[in-house]
Amino acid sequence: MLSKNKIKYIRSLELKKKRKEEQAFIAESPKLVGDLMGHFTCKLLVATSSWLSTHPHIQAEEIVEVSQDELSRASLLKTPQEVLAVFEQPKHTFCPEAIKDSLCLALDDVQDPGNLGTIIRIADWFGIEHIFCSSGTVDAYNPKTVQATMGALARVKLHYCDLVSLISSLKDVPVFGTFLDGDNIYNESLSSNGLIVMGNEGNGVSREVSELINRRLYIPNYPQDRETSESLNVAVATSIVCAEFRRRLL
Amino acid sequence: MLSKNKIKYIRSLELKKKRKEEQAFIAESPKLVGDLMGHFTCKLLVATSSWLSTHPHIQAEEIVEVSQDELSRASLLKTPQEVLAVFEQPKHTFCPEAIKDSLCLALDDVQDPGNLGTIIRIADWFGIEHIFCSSGTVDAYNPKTVQATMGALARVKLHYCDLVSLISSLKDVPVFGTFLDGDNIYNESLSSNGLIVMGNEGNGVSREVSELINRRLYIPNYPQDRETSESLNVAVATSIVCAEFRRRLL
Repeated sequence: MLSKNKIKYIRSLELKKKRKEEQAFIAESPKLVGDLMGHFTCKLLVATSSWLSTHPHIQAEEIVEVSQDELSRASLLKTPQEVLAVFEQPKHTFCPEAIKDSLCLALDDVQDPGNLGTIIRIADWFGIEHIFCSSGTVDAYNPKTVQATMGALARVKLHYCDLVSLISSLKDVPVFGTFLDGDNIYNESLSSNGLIVMGNEGNGVSREVSELINRRLYIPNYPQDRETSESLNVAVATSIVCAEFRRRLL
Repeated sequence: MLSKNKIKYIRSLELKKKRKEEQAFIAESPKLVGDLMGHFTCKLLVATSSWLSTHPHIQAEEIVEVSQDELSRASLLKTPQEVLAVFEQPKHTFCPEAIKDSLCLALDDVQDPGNLGTIIRIADWFGIEHIFCSSGTVDAYNPKTVQATMGALARVKLHYCDLVSLISSLKDVPVFGTFLDGDNIYNESLSSNGLIVMGNEGNGVSREVSELINRRLYIPNYPQDRETSESLNVAVATSIVCAEFRRRLL
């Protein structure tokens, strides 16, 4: 039985301010909760009896068995699905030195929660462990972002910081970005370390950050003389760039 | 001044059934309406006086000047933006023979309107003019799809049809698809014509269709022995595959 207070608590986590105060986030659906379980401390698990009966060894600080109807009252999804969990936000050590040894992503004010979630999933696929986000980037624990990561949040670490300070502190590390007037990515030498900066959906990379980018790339359209869209979606551009960096290493 | 009936008419176009009856669709925002104008017949244009004053030569069967407040009542967006247009759905000639001469996409029950819109934008970027959709694929004139295309809908033609019949009718044409047990795309020969089939978000390509695919591809993750997400988002996979097909031709 789910108390009114618990429902209120769960639904309050839709707000970034509340998530920060509580250092918590919500994940829903059997698949996603299963993928995150074991990677994050589960503070509260709300599930139907049928889900609980098939997961007898599940570990959580508190488990509440509910009817589908009660679950609907707490859920943020249009179609609630058997289980909802409140997890503790992890505390990742800020590690700019990772950029020297491995390929990392930086996001400069990515706004859309779905785009961020998709980018986290792309990073996971291509073995990118760290994403550095400007403070204007949407919160990684936004429920829509969490859902869109499809579990990749368990393996990719996000660090919110000032990108200008971060990049300025880097020495002898390539900093890549995509620009409509950049160099054809397929003709450029790419590396297995460094930072790839992706920008805001509408405005691209900010002026301050773009001045610190020393490797300007472009994803060529095809055929190159044909009228086309002005740009690609930021998650799509991220995927094409990451795929090409990794192809070179295969 | 926007009548109650007009508001009702506009909002009714959120429903696929109504869009089909009326052979119409909605687009919103100055950028999107501007991109589609001239490519589709505009049946109704609803705009603020400031927008209209900067677009004196705009052509529409009917133009209604409204206040921002009136626009909000008709708009499907959370943040309505100066202009909303109702366009006529185009009648594209069904042309399976295009698959013989050019690269085309087929979508097998893609469900999410945002994914479809993003895929249309990707197709536009890579010069793919025709997308063949299974009847279970979300409607291309869904307002969320239209918004996500960012204008690419003006250049890419969508055809809803039975994919099994379509593919069965093709002769000597490569039919590609992505599968988790497919062959590494970077080791395979790709072509400048044929069909690339992408599947449903949860279930991938249906069994019936997958039996007709003669070139099974796989986008390798990196590093290949690392635990990762089970799959990529369908729009993301589409973009990586299309980019690789086009890279070979550069």
